[in-house]
Amino acid sequence: MSDVATARVDAEALDAGDELASLREEFALPQGVVYLDGNSLGALPRATGARLREVVEREWGEGLIRSWNQHGWIDLPARVAALLAPLVGAAADEVAVADSTSVNLFKLLAGGLRLRPGRAVILSEEENFPTDLYVAQGLSALLQGVTLRLVPRANLAAALDESVAVLMLTHVDFRTGALHDMPQWTRAAHEVGALALWDLAHSAGAVPVDLAGSEADLAVGCGYKYLNGGPGAPAFAFVARCHHGGFETPLQGWMGHAEPFAFDPRYRPAPGIARLLCGTPPILSLAALECGVEAISRAGVARLRRKSMALTDLFVRLVERECEGFGLALASPQEATARGSQVSLRHRDGYAIVQALIARGVIGDFRAPDILRFGFAPGYLRFTDVWDAVAALRAVMEQREWERPEHRARVRVT
Amino acid sequence: MSDVATARVDAEALDAGDELASLREEFALPQGVVYLDGNSLGALPRATGARLREVVEREWGEGLIRSWNQHGWIDLPARVAALLAPLVGAAADEVAVADSTSVNLFKLLAGGLRLRPGRAVILSEEENFPTDLYVAQGLSALLQGVTLRLVPRANLAAALDESVAVLMLTHVDFRTGALHDMPQWTRAAHEVGALALWDLAHSAGAVPVDLAGSEADLAVGCGYKYLNGGPGAPAFAFVARCHHGGFETPLQGWMGHAEPFAFDPRYRPAPGIARLLCGTPPILSLAALECGVEAISRAGVARLRRKSMALTDLFVRLVERECEGFGLALASPQEATARGSQVSLRHRDGYAIVQALIARGVIGDFRAPDILRFGFAPGYLRFTDVWDAVAALRAVMEQREWERPEHRARVRVT
Repeated sequence: MSDVATARVDAEALDAGDELASLREEFALPQGVVYLDGNSLGALPRATGARLREVVEREWGEGLIRSWNQHGWIDLPARVAALLAPLVGAAADEVAVADSTSVNLFKLLAGGLRLRPGRAVILSEEENFPTDLYVAQGLSALLQGVTLRLVPRANLAAALDESVAVLMLTHVDFRTGALHDMPQWTRAAHEVGALALWDLAHSAGAVPVDLAGSEADLAVGCGYKYLNGGPGAPAFAFVARCHHGGFETPLQGWMGHAEPFAFDPRYRPAPGIARLLCGTPPILSLAALECGVEAISRAGVARLRRKSMALTDLFVRLVERECEGFGLALASPQEATARGSQVSLRHRDGYAIVQALIARGVIGDFRAPDILRFGFAPGYLRFTDVWDAVAALRAVMEQREWERPEHRARVRVT
Repeated sequence: MSDVATARVDAEALDAGDELASLREEFALPQGVVYLDGNSLGALPRATGARLREVVEREWGEGLIRSWNQHGWIDLPARVAALLAPLVGAAADEVAVADSTSVNLFKLLAGGLRLRPGRAVILSEEENFPTDLYVAQGLSALLQGVTLRLVPRANLAAALDESVAVLMLTHVDFRTGALHDMPQWTRAAHEVGALALWDLAHSAGAVPVDLAGSEADLAVGCGYKYLNGGPGAPAFAFVARCHHGGFETPLQGWMGHAEPFAFDPRYRPAPGIARLLCGTPPILSLAALECGVEAISRAGVARLRRKSMALTDLFVRLVERECEGFGLALASPQEATARGSQVSLRHRDGYAIVQALIARGVIGDFRAPDILRFGFAPGYLRFTDVWDAVAALRAVMEQREWERPEHRARVRVT
C-alpha cells in the first residue's frame, strides 16, 4: 500500500486485481455483513455443510461402527494434522490434532517441564491470552515447586534465566495483534537452556509460521479462527521431532497408546506425536476442521499474508484519514510486518462503538478495557469490505451512535 | 422372559407389544443390518442431520460470532448437561458436558486426590477399561507419591483401606457387561474415608443410575454410546454438590473461569460445576449430542431398562438353545439384573466369528482375547433383531464360516 485509496472505486480496483479474490467464493458469508471477526470465529467454508452431511448420514448413519475403518475415522486426526503441518512450518509427524488449545497446552507444559528436570519455572508475559495463563496456573497448583513467572512484555528478556524450563509466548498478541519475533525469542530461550512454547492461535492460517526454521520446541494452536474449523473446532499441538524420544504427556488416553485396540492395562505410549492423542476424537468436528484447513492450504500462507498486510494497511490508513479527531488511537503496530492479521484501536467507549458497528453490519469485537478489535481474514475479505468498514466507523463516530443506550448495555461478548 | 420364543413369529409378537417400538423410528438405521454395537457407537438419531444443518448453515454460516449469544452456544454445554443429568440421577448443576471421558477423568482424579489430602492411592480393578487405567497412570507419573493400586475384582474389598483416596470403578464392565453394585461400593469407599468415582460409559442411557441415591462422589461418562451423540461426542463429568466447595481441577481453562470474558490474567474458578469446563466447547459435536440425549430422555431410562433386560434375556436363552455344542460360553452374568445392556460370549475363535457375523449383517464386536460382544441398545433394537442375530450366529457356527481366511485376517477393530 503506497497510496491510500481515495474513493471506493480504488478499493474496487484492488479487489479486481486480487489474486485471492476467487477464494471468497469458497466461503458462505451472509449478505450485508462485513465480517471482521474471523480471528475469533472463522467463516463457514461452503464445502463443510456437504461434508458433514456425508459424515453424518452416510458414514455414521449407514456405516456405523464400521466407519472407523471403512471411512478412515481412525486416521482422521493424523490426516488433518498432515494437512495443517505445512501451514506452521512443521512436518506431518510433528503435529497432533486433538482436544482444545487449553488441554493441549496442559500436555505440552507438563511434558516440557519433564524435558527440563531441575527447572521449575514457566515464564510468560502478563499480556498473554488468559486461558494460557490459567492452564499454567492450574499445572503449577498441581505440581509442587512449579511456578508461573509472569512479567510485562518489556521485562521478558531480563526474566529469562537458567531457572526457566519453558518460555511460553503467544505469537500474535490477542489484544494488539503485535507479532513476537519467533526465531529471536526461541534462540533466547535456548541460550539459557529453556524450551520455547508458542501459542499460534492468531497465527495459523494467516501469518507465516516457521516452527522448524525457528527451532521452536513446542506449539499449540486453534482450529476455529483463521483455519475456519467451526465453533470450538479441535486444536493442534506440535512437538519438535528432536524431543519425541523423551516427550511424555500426563494426559494418557487410549488413542495415544501404542496399540489402542490391544486393551492392554499398562499404558505404552505410541511412538512419536501420536502419543499426544488422548480420548476418542470428535469426528464431526474434525471433519469440519479438515474442510477449513483444506481451503486455507489451497490458498497458501504466503499469498494470504501478502493480502492480509495489504488489507490491514488499507484499514490503518483509511482510519487515520477518515476518523481523525474522534479519539481513536491505533493499538496495533504501525508496520504491517510487525502485526498479525488484525488491527486494534483504542477508545474509552470502545464497547459501545463496537456494538454500534455491529448494528451497521460491521462485525468486530471488543476486548476490555478499551480495545476495538478488527480481524482481517484474507481468505474471504475484500478491499471494499475495508472501505465499507471504515465508512461505517466514521458514521458511528460522527453521529455519536455509541451514546445510544442500546449500544451501551452490556451483553456477553465472545 | 419366562418363555423363550420358539419361532420368529414369537419375536414378532414381542415387537408388536413393545411400548418403545415407535422410538426406533427416531433413528436412521441401514437396511439389512442388525446393529448390536450401539454400546460402542450409538445409532444416528434422525433429528441430528437437520439440527446440524441448522447449526452449520444458519447459526455458524449466517450468525457467525454472534451465535455465541444469539443462538445460545455459550449455554449449550449447560443445556446438554441439564438434559443428561436426570438420566444418571444427578441434579443439573452437578453435571458438566465437556472434553472426552479420558480428559474428564483426569480432572476428577486430580480433583479427588486434593479432596483427600494425606492419601495417595487410586484403587481400581485390573479389568477396568484401559483408558481409565492409563489416565490414572498418567496422573500418578505426574504426581510424586500417587499410586494406582490395581487388583483383580475379587480382591477389591481387601484392597480398599484407609490409604485409598479414590476408588475408581466402571459401572458396567466393558468386556463382560457385569454390573457393579454402585450403592454398595460407594458405601464401602466411604467407610474407609475414600471417594467413589464411577465411569458410566456403558450405563448412561441404558441402565438406571442413581448417583444421588448412591451418594456417589464423582463420575464420568461417554456421549457416543447409548446416548447416541455421534463418533467422539463430548463426554460428561459429575461432581456431587457436597464437594463443590473444595473441588479444584488442574485443567483450568477460560470456559471454567468465573468471568471468561473479563480476560482476567488470574484464574478464578466459576462457582459450582462450571469450573469443570476448560477450553472452547465443540459446538457441532455438542449439538449432535443434544439430539441423542433428547431421544433417550423422551423414552426414559426405566422403560429402556425393562426392554433392554427383555432383549438380553431373549438373546441368552436363544443362544443357549440354538447354539448348543458350538463351544460358545456365556461371559456375562446369567441374570439380567446383574448385567448392563450387553451380552458377551466367549470362544477362542471369537474374532473370526464376529467377522463372519458382520459379513452376514449382524454387527457386534470383539474384545481380546476371546470375547464376542453384543450390545442391545433398547432405543432402536427389536426382538426380531435378536432372533435374526441368533439365527445368523447359528448359521456361522454350523457352517464353520469363521474358518474362512477373509474372516481370520486381522484388521483394526474399534
